[in-house]
Amino acid sequence: MRDKVIITDAISGVLADRRQCRAIPYTPEEYAAEAKRCYDEGAAVVHVHAREDDGAPCFRPARYAEIRDAIAAACPLLINFSTGAVGIPMEERVAHISEHRPHIGALNMGSLTYAKYSERRKAFVFDLVFANPYKEIVFLLETMNAAGVKPELECFDSGHVSGTEALLDMGLLRPPLDFSFILGVTGGMKASARHLAFQAENAPAGSSWKVIGISKEQWVLIAAALSLGGDVRVGLEDNFYLPGGEMARSNGELVAQAARMVRAVGREPATPEEAARILGIEVNRREGGR
Amino acid sequence: MRDKVIITDAISGVLADRRQCRAIPYTPEEYAAEAKRCYDEGAAVVHVHAREDDGAPCFRPARYAEIRDAIAAACPLLINFSTGAVGIPMEERVAHISEHRPHIGALNMGSLTYAKYSERRKAFVFDLVFANPYKEIVFLLETMNAAGVKPELECFDSGHVSGTEALLDMGLLRPPLDFSFILGVTGGMKASARHLAFQAENAPAGSSWKVIGISKEQWVLIAAALSLGGDVRVGLEDNFYLPGGEMARSNGELVAQAARMVRAVGREPATPEEAARILGIEVNRREGGR
Amino acid sequence: MRDKVIITDAISGVLADRRQCRAIPYTPEEYAAEAKRCYDEGAAVVHVHAREDDGAPCFRPARYAEIRDAIAAACPLLINFSTGAVGIPMEERVAHISEHRPHIGALNMGSLTYAKYSERRKAFVFDLVFANPYKEIVFLLETMNAAGVKPELECFDSGHVSGTEALLDMGLLRPPLDFSFILGVTGGMKASARHLAFQAENAPAGSSWKVIGISKEQWVLIAAALSLGGDVRVGLEDNFYLPGGEMARSNGELVAQAARMVRAVGREPATPEEAARILGIEVNRREGGR
Amino acid sequence: MRDKVIITDAISGVLADRRQCRAIPYTPEEYAAEAKRCYDEGAAVVHVHAREDDGAPCFRPARYAEIRDAIAAACPLLINFSTGAVGIPMEERVAHISEHRPHIGALNMGSLTYAKYSERRKAFVFDLVFANPYKEIVFLLETMNAAGVKPELECFDSGHVSGTEALLDMGLLRPPLDFSFILGVTGGMKASARHLAFQAENAPAGSSWKVIGISKEQWVLIAAALSLGGDVRVGLEDNFYLPGGEMARSNGELVAQAARMVRAVGREPATPEEAARILGIEVNRREGGR
Repeated sequence: MRDKVIITDAISGVLADRRQCRAIPYTPEEYAAEAKRCYDEGAAVVHVHAREDDGAPCFRPARYAEIRDAIAAACPLLINFSTGAVGIPMEERVAHISEHRPHIGALNMGSLTYAKYSERRKAFVFDLVFANPYKEIVFLLETMNAAGVKPELECFDSGHVSGTEALLDMGLLRPPLDFSFILGVTGGMKASARHLAFQAENAPAGSSWKVIGISKEQWVLIAAALSLGGDVRVGLEDNFYLPGGEMARSNGELVAQAARMVRAVGREPATPEEAARILGIEVNRREGGR
Repeated sequence: MRDKVIITDAISGVLADRRQCRAIPYTPEEYAAEAKRCYDEGAAVVHVHAREDDGAPCFRPARYAEIRDAIAAACPLLINFSTGAVGIPMEERVAHISEHRPHIGALNMGSLTYAKYSERRKAFVFDLVFANPYKEIVFLLETMNAAGVKPELECFDSGHVSGTEALLDMGLLRPPLDFSFILGVTGGMKASARHLAFQAENAPAGSSWKVIGISKEQWVLIAAALSLGGDVRVGLEDNFYLPGGEMARSNGELVAQAARMVRAVGREPATPEEAARILGIEVNRREGGR
Repeated sequence: MRDKVIITDAISGVLADRRQCRAIPYTPEEYAAEAKRCYDEGAAVVHVHAREDDGAPCFRPARYAEIRDAIAAACPLLINFSTGAVGIPMEERVAHISEHRPHIGALNMGSLTYAKYSERRKAFVFDLVFANPYKEIVFLLETMNAAGVKPELECFDSGHVSGTEALLDMGLLRPPLDFSFILGVTGGMKASARHLAFQAENAPAGSSWKVIGISKEQWVLIAAALSLGGDVRVGLEDNFYLPGGEMARSNGELVAQAARMVRAVGREPATPEEAARILGIEVNRREGGR
Repeated sequence: MRDKVIITDAISGVLADRRQCRAIPYTPEEYAAEAKRCYDEGAAVVHVHAREDDGAPCFRPARYAEIRDAIAAACPLLINFSTGAVGIPMEERVAHISEHRPHIGALNMGSLTYAKYSERRKAFVFDLVFANPYKEIVFLLETMNAAGVKPELECFDSGHVSGTEALLDMGLLRPPLDFSFILGVTGGMKASARHLAFQAENAPAGSSWKVIGISKEQWVLIAAALSLGGDVRVGLEDNFYLPGGEMARSNGELVAQAARMVRAVGREPATPEEAARILGIEVNRREGGR
């Protein structure tokens, strides 16, 4: 088991805003301040969904560049840009990647029903087919490869992992692969330590992987990932709450808690430099990319 | 491990036709003759996609009724109607279920990218988002429940299995559940004994399940299913070839091979009556349904 | 997953003594002081190997009674007596159980080579056949059943777990069972989260189980157990060191660290009363037993 | 998954004799005739426990040599000599290995309680501690290495597999390793496809492995092994009966049934030459060894 653990912070998502949690950043300065707090507490990577000053989510490349520059000025975290969206043309979802070349680009690796079930209401309160056919994945990978951006392979179920065999065979993916296993979406893989272990077993040997848990189940999945040799992700995109139930006052508080758990199992948070080495991101490229 | 094994034969699909395999039935009489061969060799259930006399796949309720009646006149197999289709309105996909009440109705339990990759061409040669949101699953279950039809829960990945928890909580599914684990579709769960074991572990205790393998990997998955306590499916819909590589001259030849494998592990093919008992299908209902 | 976690502290073993770790208790008063610290920090059970005032391990029933009484006067922890030993006649290993009826009695469930390998010396530095044939297990269970003592089923490998099927069939074990999975002994099951998950899957449904990890691997196994729904054990018998590498100054420090990890995954330490309820130990019996 | 399957036949054991099964060979000529039948039906390896003409099991080197020579004259099967015994000095258990250098030598990799439970009698009818400390394993490996004999690593539980890590580190074992997973002994690993999959997962990458099932559960475990990519063993040492319940009239009948199952999953029996290549046994050595 690797000693160093890459802690990623998903600093903000697209669904929730400041009405739900006051610490969600809108301006580049706010992103940078949150990123700095994450870095200070042990994070190595920050995952970014851009927003306008009024909090509206956006895919405007110039906005991604402003946020990236503000974060880079504040701390040396590796920067990961989102590409996932529903109902937005593919070209729009990828321009910020090709123009502004983050270290890492997130990439959804397959389709599923993305649903939410309410036990109280006895009904599905969200029920969307999240469509990611291979032609879109191929297009995104070609774009990332051309830009020298490392793909983060987001997998909601086991078929999303085994589909990488074809993409390796096509030469669009090159080892070592970096996986994110998202657990707990109704319609996708269930949130349990056993399910996480199964995903991890099916990644090609030599891959790195992290767990992405949604809402309160996140912390127990982080314990599972740490015990299985994986990396972890926290952040206000995934979950506002500390294990005891209090809302976090910043992304930094969530990272601090993750770092305590990393140390509790005898492992250590990786620095951004160590994370770059693990993920196979070249340092030269990192500077050239800016 | 249950001694009796339910052998299902998927007598014909929608993709291949007689140009690929001469034994695929088109007319009700041909369906009946194939079904009889399956019954004679040890099958308990026949899974039906209807076709017109010229071989064109169809969802016409009257055609389903003709095929059902022809089969029922020839042998006492339990009859399972398909409901899966792409690009056909839901009402059309279900009218044959509500009007003609088969013993069992097949039901796709989630969404995935349904793809096919060619190593030779280094390209995806088929790449479809197979969309099955929960609102459609709920509609199909309500229809089946009203008609007294047992749902066969077709699962292409792990989220399709865990999604049953919500449907059980809503009261739309009632134990014992009957699962089919389809393995080997690119974009869905991989075809391996370990993947099959994982699906089986995640079905609620007391469920029955079978494996559905595609093409040449089918036979090794049948060995895996038999060793794990599961049921099996063969038939020209899934695979034309016997283990040695010869094309089957009838569905009956495929069933005979499956039955030999059942007996080789010390288990026995279930009769249609035994299968009805295992699946919780009432005998009264079976007669009433016709 | 059960919310409450039973934390057991193995307050002292038989191999190490105060030359290795100053906090190991010898006198009944020292046992009681250590037990009280454990209780204050969140433990529910204390596992006891008796020692004489000079630190020599012993199986003298009167000594066990003195230690038990001292602990009971200090705090309401459930008390678990060891029965495992090499080279000591069975009658001697069990007299303290039948005479002084602890709440719980530890019971080794099978045989293995109990070895220790030194990578540095390229040699086995310890190599013992730890023999626990079923006739001895049967004798110990009959004694515990007659005394109303709950058996803690100590399993070093998978066969030790599946052997319980015969003992259940004989009526010597009665559900719910309580397992301890010891990992990391060379010759027994390896210390990994995947091995722990496998042991847990093979326990009969409704069983409780804890992990017992040896030396520095203990903490990561505790994270694994917490994520899999299990209970945990710490204590100077198993490991002297906190995750950061400092030697613990008391059993209480080890329990405090375990309790922090319990809360980090959103679970809570069980009180001794809650633990008794989970384990099926009657409260009346507990008082009567003293 | 490897296409070729090594079928081993354990031609005779030490416990049963001709009163239980008439086909058990005693004389070298009978061994040779049985071995030839196995070879003709698809076996690649024969596992030998020697007997005297009156059927008494023995470890006499000269007798092993006679049997080996008779078999070698009849067919080109690879020859595997037993080394396992209870109550016989180590030197005696190994002289036939060092003096007569079979291709393969069987080696028990750990200790366990080796028991048999009778549900009918509600009692253990056999209850032995099968002691194989590492000092004996080290001695046997040194002997086999000096003689150029390939060790077959017989594992009754998971610790027997993970113990190979130390022996690899000592240089006593060299990849590729060849494992036998014995399932179904009370006190050792349970006979199920899931347990077999777990053992296989824990063997070092690149190892070959076979399943050894005891009595009637053998055939279903063979189906499991074939589906998991493993090799198989049959033979009168393990089981007298064909899947339908008839007693085999020869080892050849058991091999023929195994070969049918191999072909039913689309795999092929390996020839002795192919088996030697898979196991890393040199052809020169094979001739030199005689």
